Amino acid sequence: MSAIDELVRNNDAFASGRYPGSQSGTPSTGVAVVTCMDARIDVYAMLGLRPGDAHVLRNAGGAVTEDVIRSLTLSQRLFGTQEVALVHHTDCGMLKVREQELKERVQRETGLRPPFALEAFTDLDDDVRQSIARVKASPYLPSTFEVRGFVYEVHSGRLREVVAVR
Amino acid sequence: MSAIDELVRNNDAFASGRYPGSQSGTPSTGVAVVTCMDARIDVYAMLGLRPGDAHVLRNAGGAVTEDVIRSLTLSQRLFGTQEVALVHHTDCGMLKVREQELKERVQRETGLRPPFALEAFTDLDDDVRQSIARVKASPYLPSTFEVRGFVYEVHSGRLREVVAVR
Repeated sequence: MSAIDELVRNNDAFASGRYPGSQSGTPSTGVAVVTCMDARIDVYAMLGLRPGDAHVLRNAGGAVTEDVIRSLTLSQRLFGTQEVALVHHTDCGMLKVREQELKERVQRETGLRPPFALEAFTDLDDDVRQSIARVKASPYLPSTFEVRGFVYEVHSGRLREVVAVR
Repeated sequence: MSAIDELVRNNDAFASGRYPGSQSGTPSTGVAVVTCMDARIDVYAMLGLRPGDAHVLRNAGGAVTEDVIRSLTLSQRLFGTQEVALVHHTDCGMLKVREQELKERVQRETGLRPPFALEAFTDLDDDVRQSIARVKASPYLPSTFEVRGFVYEVHSGRLREVVAVR
């Protein structure tokens, strides 16, 4: 049995018991959360969200890539969200490696050097500010009323605010 | 008070009470989950995950974009994941719009036509298969032992498996 088989079994228990029933696909809070794929971040528990409350975007590092701009554009155009909460976190894998070393490692292990940025970064708070600046600079996100940047401290479960921009 | 202020208050309660404490950043199941940003999908509840169990990647549609390939590459290279669970869902916003209409709408509302694909699709099961094929075709993901594709039925909370590839 693969690990995914076990997750499917868990889903069966969830659908049979804890599932809260249908909600609207339009986020009730008007918030889109952007954060890292890190396994320790249970976004709904961390922010007290219920199903239906907020869009959740996640990738390696919580980087504001073109794909995040695409997703936020659709979040604002099709679903009317107006606030963005960006959450990076302590002990992030992308903070422990350098971009060039990482590209060389991928090349060594897969045979190919990625033509895309891997989005490694060196300073957590600086990268939160950089990410917020990318959201603010995007011409596709004119409906952004508020962008807030946080660091999630994985040892305590606590968010620390780095920057707020309106 | 903005909606984000309320989420920050929720986090305070979470960190003070329910936070399970530190875990390792290496996913214990070896699984990376790729799914949509849709607000109704609480991934940890849906799959019975605990913090530390799996990487979670989310964007508009759960599309396998370059950013998802980047994130999966790092998931496999830095954290050793070997299984990918791709989850699309019923009632998806990306299923209700056509790519060209969507681009025109973004242009009309923001003044700019996006140069990037918005990743609208017309058939849910076909798009799951297409997304799985993109993962399998990527030369950056040689460690993929298993890729499974699902549709999450938002009215029932239940996963329906579409395709499994090894």
